[in-house]
Amino acid sequence: MMLPQFYVDDVIKRSIEEDINYIDLATDLLLDDDKKARAEFVAKDDGIIAGIDIALRVFRLLDDTIVTERLISDGTAVKKGDIISSVEGSVKTILKGERTALNLLNHLSGVATATGRLVAEAKKYGKARIVDTRKTTPGLRALEKYAVTAGGGFNHRFNLSDAAMLKDNHIDAYGSITKAVQTLRSKIGHMAKIEVEARTMEDMLEAIECGADVIMLDNMNCEQMAECVKVCSGRAVLEASGNIDINTVGAVAATGVDIISSGAITHSAKVLDISLKIRK
Amino acid sequence: MMLPQFYVDDVIKRSIEEDINYIDLATDLLLDDDKKARAEFVAKDDGIIAGIDIALRVFRLLDDTIVTERLISDGTAVKKGDIISSVEGSVKTILKGERTALNLLNHLSGVATATGRLVAEAKKYGKARIVDTRKTTPGLRALEKYAVTAGGGFNHRFNLSDAAMLKDNHIDAYGSITKAVQTLRSKIGHMAKIEVEARTMEDMLEAIECGADVIMLDNMNCEQMAECVKVCSGRAVLEASGNIDINTVGAVAATGVDIISSGAITHSAKVLDISLKIRK
Amino acid sequence: MMLPQFYVDDVIKRSIEEDINYIDLATDLLLDDDKKARAEFVAKDDGIIAGIDIALRVFRLLDDTIVTERLISDGTAVKKGDIISSVEGSVKTILKGERTALNLLNHLSGVATATGRLVAEAKKYGKARIVDTRKTTPGLRALEKYAVTAGGGFNHRFNLSDAAMLKDNHIDAYGSITKAVQTLRSKIGHMAKIEVEARTMEDMLEAIECGADVIMLDNMNCEQMAECVKVCSGRAVLEASGNIDINTVGAVAATGVDIISSGAITHSAKVLDISLKIRK
Amino acid sequence: MMLPQFYVDDVIKRSIEEDINYIDLATDLLLDDDKKARAEFVAKDDGIIAGIDIALRVFRLLDDTIVTERLISDGTAVKKGDIISSVEGSVKTILKGERTALNLLNHLSGVATATGRLVAEAKKYGKARIVDTRKTTPGLRALEKYAVTAGGGFNHRFNLSDAAMLKDNHIDAYGSITKAVQTLRSKIGHMAKIEVEARTMEDMLEAIECGADVIMLDNMNCEQMAECVKVCSGRAVLEASGNIDINTVGAVAATGVDIISSGAITHSAKVLDISLKIRK
Amino acid sequence: MMLPQFYVDDVIKRSIEEDINYIDLATDLLLDDDKKARAEFVAKDDGIIAGIDIALRVFRLLDDTIVTERLISDGTAVKKGDIISSVEGSVKTILKGERTALNLLNHLSGVATATGRLVAEAKKYGKARIVDTRKTTPGLRALEKYAVTAGGGFNHRFNLSDAAMLKDNHIDAYGSITKAVQTLRSKIGHMAKIEVEARTMEDMLEAIECGADVIMLDNMNCEQMAECVKVCSGRAVLEASGNIDINTVGAVAATGVDIISSGAITHSAKVLDISLKIRK
Amino acid sequence: MMLPQFYVDDVIKRSIEEDINYIDLATDLLLDDDKKARAEFVAKDDGIIAGIDIALRVFRLLDDTIVTERLISDGTAVKKGDIISSVEGSVKTILKGERTALNLLNHLSGVATATGRLVAEAKKYGKARIVDTRKTTPGLRALEKYAVTAGGGFNHRFNLSDAAMLKDNHIDAYGSITKAVQTLRSKIGHMAKIEVEARTMEDMLEAIECGADVIMLDNMNCEQMAECVKVCSGRAVLEASGNIDINTVGAVAATGVDIISSGAITHSAKVLDISLKIRK
Repeated sequence: MMLPQFYVDDVIKRSIEEDINYIDLATDLLLDDDKKARAEFVAKDDGIIAGIDIALRVFRLLDDTIVTERLISDGTAVKKGDIISSVEGSVKTILKGERTALNLLNHLSGVATATGRLVAEAKKYGKARIVDTRKTTPGLRALEKYAVTAGGGFNHRFNLSDAAMLKDNHIDAYGSITKAVQTLRSKIGHMAKIEVEARTMEDMLEAIECGADVIMLDNMNCEQMAECVKVCSGRAVLEASGNIDINTVGAVAATGVDIISSGAITHSAKVLDISLKIRK
Repeated sequence: MMLPQFYVDDVIKRSIEEDINYIDLATDLLLDDDKKARAEFVAKDDGIIAGIDIALRVFRLLDDTIVTERLISDGTAVKKGDIISSVEGSVKTILKGERTALNLLNHLSGVATATGRLVAEAKKYGKARIVDTRKTTPGLRALEKYAVTAGGGFNHRFNLSDAAMLKDNHIDAYGSITKAVQTLRSKIGHMAKIEVEARTMEDMLEAIECGADVIMLDNMNCEQMAECVKVCSGRAVLEASGNIDINTVGAVAATGVDIISSGAITHSAKVLDISLKIRK
Repeated sequence: MMLPQFYVDDVIKRSIEEDINYIDLATDLLLDDDKKARAEFVAKDDGIIAGIDIALRVFRLLDDTIVTERLISDGTAVKKGDIISSVEGSVKTILKGERTALNLLNHLSGVATATGRLVAEAKKYGKARIVDTRKTTPGLRALEKYAVTAGGGFNHRFNLSDAAMLKDNHIDAYGSITKAVQTLRSKIGHMAKIEVEARTMEDMLEAIECGADVIMLDNMNCEQMAECVKVCSGRAVLEASGNIDINTVGAVAATGVDIISSGAITHSAKVLDISLKIRK
Repeated sequence: MMLPQFYVDDVIKRSIEEDINYIDLATDLLLDDDKKARAEFVAKDDGIIAGIDIALRVFRLLDDTIVTERLISDGTAVKKGDIISSVEGSVKTILKGERTALNLLNHLSGVATATGRLVAEAKKYGKARIVDTRKTTPGLRALEKYAVTAGGGFNHRFNLSDAAMLKDNHIDAYGSITKAVQTLRSKIGHMAKIEVEARTMEDMLEAIECGADVIMLDNMNCEQMAECVKVCSGRAVLEASGNIDINTVGAVAATGVDIISSGAITHSAKVLDISLKIRK
Repeated sequence: MMLPQFYVDDVIKRSIEEDINYIDLATDLLLDDDKKARAEFVAKDDGIIAGIDIALRVFRLLDDTIVTERLISDGTAVKKGDIISSVEGSVKTILKGERTALNLLNHLSGVATATGRLVAEAKKYGKARIVDTRKTTPGLRALEKYAVTAGGGFNHRFNLSDAAMLKDNHIDAYGSITKAVQTLRSKIGHMAKIEVEARTMEDMLEAIECGADVIMLDNMNCEQMAECVKVCSGRAVLEASGNIDINTVGAVAATGVDIISSGAITHSAKVLDISLKIRK
Repeated sequence: MMLPQFYVDDVIKRSIEEDINYIDLATDLLLDDDKKARAEFVAKDDGIIAGIDIALRVFRLLDDTIVTERLISDGTAVKKGDIISSVEGSVKTILKGERTALNLLNHLSGVATATGRLVAEAKKYGKARIVDTRKTTPGLRALEKYAVTAGGGFNHRFNLSDAAMLKDNHIDAYGSITKAVQTLRSKIGHMAKIEVEARTMEDMLEAIECGADVIMLDNMNCEQMAECVKVCSGRAVLEASGNIDINTVGAVAATGVDIISSGAITHSAKVLDISLKIRK
């Protein structure tokens, strides 16, 4: 896991507090402290896994005597029935952590799976990368961006501080793309890239001229985008955005754009169905 | 909004910190402090709205001079093009809060919409309520459970402390449903209900006998459930669970069960597409 | 301990920060780092113990080389002079954690002891359970509710979200108990119980008729309560509340009510006197 | 209120989260948003009030349209039936905040009342101040120390960083009171006072000689303390500690000690009974 | 202020808690609540101001009846004796907030002043921007980076997530700058720039060839840097780093580099002396 | 380390979050998980070290398999080239923690070094202690006060709650030093010292008469202070304050004052240059 441990722990603690609050009435009142079990996370559908270590960490935050094992790595494609990881120790802890662990693992694996499907489809038609957006689930941006990379995608900027995107409102305030980009360049740090939304090929050309690093082709159809790619000829990175799904991504990739960004892979991904099977 | 304001504020602040981090490079460096605008939240698809006040609160936490207006209430069904609410004030604030506000509003409206569809379909065939589960997005349980009610659904227990559900592991530890329920009843508070998972009609009958408040019919087909409903004859609340979707919910409702629970309405709801249109 | 470890840790850290702030002037400036000792928690009065693991955790949060031992379990009745648990390791840590550990242990044992006295007295006269209320010390509800169970008591609802109690104001808004209960039943989740405050036997009968799960007999004398118990005849759970103390609890239990709730066991319990004796 | 507002707010938010968690099932589901009321805090017993502003703040944190009024000041002695303060606004908010407000107000007024009783009794026999200790309720030290002053008492040190008290263990490590005090004086800041526990008059005299600012007379009877007071003759501040209650405090004050410290006024104070009466 | 208000508030609250802890003994015990005053922040030395709004916010977080006025803007150069801003209201609040406000204002103005001196000196000799580094004071990065811009400087990357810098260890792991840059480019998001540390002109040329966005000239003297600038000829951004102070910055700027980064402007800036004068 | 571990951990986590945010792009994307290294903290300048354990803790919070070793203790004077401590384990962790560890260690060692220089100089001329003030860096007071003691200095009060200092505004409100001190003494706890600012010898004498514990000689020159020392003759502790630097401290010490307080040792200390050298 690349994310700092205590950052992940904060997300997990928040989730456990939501799910357990004080105690687990059924488990805490009925089961013995010394009863042990082994449980396995098993895929109940095909997909790509993300968040294994995060899910296992849930149990260790509840009880540091739990032994966990990761059998595959994040980013692995699984088939229904594949075993992903295991936990062994107090049954009480396993039952108390089960829902929180699955809520995290299934959500992140859902993001990785949705990403992986677009990646696989796009790859058939072009070199375009699938990237995420800022349309993430509140409170889970870092984890979802991590899951996107597990699914074979790439990350767009993390937040509004690390790169700039010029939209209509920014450009209108300066009268032209050129003036807006120049003004911004004179104020922004030298490590931050500038992306410009272009509604027409003229916009794109103006953005290239004034030195935009990345240009988003906004609301263009595939024909227009293909034309833009040809005219741009590598002078800037071109990003296609909007209405990307498994049916359209191939045609968009075929236009030759460098980047295809999708909000749906984070904000509307179906969970991947994974369950925790208690053995013995 | 029924949730305590500062609880909602914590979710919003976390989201803003993810999205803005320090500053909004494009907006903070390019736009004037005194430029004003009015912006409207507009539905771009049909659905049910939830989270209007939460989305508007984003702007006021960034800048308390922003004026907000709610035009409809949470729970309202909207058509594509309907205006939901508006914000008026500094353009900078509006642009900085836009993404966070939409991430919250679109997600919660997605949950309300998914719930509303199941509710509408179930209503055609029976009296069953649509209820949520503990399969919520980590960090957003309270907001999602609120959105479920906005969509016409009801809430199952909030967490493991407020009611008990007996699953295989709990029952196996005591040898029978009867012994497990009796033991739990002797230890649990008098305000907490007990639900039992029944895999067969025999299980259901035993659970009724020993006084379970609610019985979940686990992995039964519609025929079996209909039979259970008849035999139970109102002596306990019966809950259908598992594989509920828009195609199956009608048939399940037609069995006469009291409750149909769905994890998908919270964990796999597509966002409802809403955008913020800046006027002038 | 049934409560999640990090939940308890948060309470402890808050307490240590209050008590130590930055450093312990006397201990940090005068004692050597390598001086070791063993210390024992010793009861200085008779009572019931609760919070042993919480008190021992204080030392381990300050210094994870401290070795702790629990000699008895929470819920055990002790006599003056009984040894409860021990800590062994750096004297500095033992002295720095002493006050925080005792503040927690003595308070929670005070709650358990006060509960245990009511339980013992009530048991002589009837089957009624002693339960807590929402009148808990701010910031310590979960710990105090745990201590109540250690003392042989039971928990009423944890909070306003997990069960409903209808008071005058709720009932007045609907004109009758029946209308209020029916309205609430149509909106509340199927896992939440409804309790109604009844000021008269007529109230109680109406509440039974409309399906209240629990009925609080409000401001009734023992004669009236005994009459209610007879008339109710098991159709609802009956709760006595108000002015319960060691002198009155027996008579109340003798009325045959199911539940006797007491705020004093949490909000006004005298601490149980326990001290930490440093050996060697 | 002398305490920083956001400090108090943190305590209140923690308490509200414990008490409401997500929503107030009865109130949120049954009452109209636009129903208004006025409610008064009324003493149901005699005592001294502390925490009025804190209790009123609960409602404003839930809903900033609530209007509050303080009719008396903290530190005022009330009789049963006296009105303390009022809140006016949404009935929903009033009902949702009631328990948290009372839990805080009744607890702090209990501390003030217990303090005030000792103060009144001690005053009859001597000049001794009643002061608190570090035996406070975890999480509430600052509020309880404030309540002690409202009751006419004084504060001992707030925490281990702001003054030093030498106990057996500190003294034993240096072989004598003199060596321990001298060593500490050479290391401690010039703004921190040093108190020494004296078990005998010899201890007291040694402590005076080596410049202790305050001397605690440990486990001495009243005769011994009176003798110490005479011999000390104002060369150090003398503090009596241990087993102070309403029956013993007068005799202790009569010995002429300067300070009488009591843990019971914070850790074992009975709440003062105050209720919230909703008018109209 | 571009930083989110609640982000700044968190820093302020932490500072107030450190400085006041519970109460201000002298002020809270001696002064009347209703005594009012006006106070002015006055420069006691020449420099550039940063953090005015942050300092004024301190008082409003303590007491929202305080009226504040900003007389100049952040980034303004002041002379000794210049008035910067004022606060008006309760004397108690003014005295309680004074130290925290000054600690923030003087520190940030110190950073702005140190930056401004380098900027002014560098400007005489070349076009190089003065930029900050990650060598910031723990807990104050965002505020210090803001102060750098107030002083006329620019921001380097905010953190390790928003741009990449390849140092020896990264390059050694891949055998060459080229391989390291190519590998990183294949994995990093398209919005993140890559900077490479070059110890020689050969390193610089290799970095240019493989497409590094920015190249840090590491431990080169001015002659070597001037040579690099000539050879690079605008193909990459060149950054000088290390041992930059008011005596050396001119010569470094004269080499023609684009960027001069300085850790000292954040980690070793002397505070700017500003005091709060209470009038009337 | 005398400070509670979790207190220090909070400072470190805040710093890591600032510096890493989500991931370290260069390190996380380029280096292998199983690559190990050993790295040493090496002084690059002469000074006094403070914060070794804090710096080492950074790595262990990121990864608890890192092995750390402290070679010298806080408070040790080092020469350029001296090795201070080492870390061994994953290269990734070492690189990710490097900047945060150095930012803390270099800052605190800078404070210790600045303190140590004043201490050494003052010692040549008198017995005066060098003490800190409340002019600390926001968020780092406890750590800086600890560093002052590592440098041979002493701590003034930690905060406004643990001792009182009477300034003009407090005294003016009561008409005289005597009345202000008497009023405060009647209200303040018996463990809190009172310091008074004296502008003239008359002020000092009045403060001595009315029992001030400490007297700050405000804006006096060395001649005046020496005269005050003579006249005071040990009846109170005398503190010199204002414009203390390495050039003036000797003369001030020579006046015979007891205490010399300096804000600059905390608010304007240059960092001590220490770097982390990665071996192998």
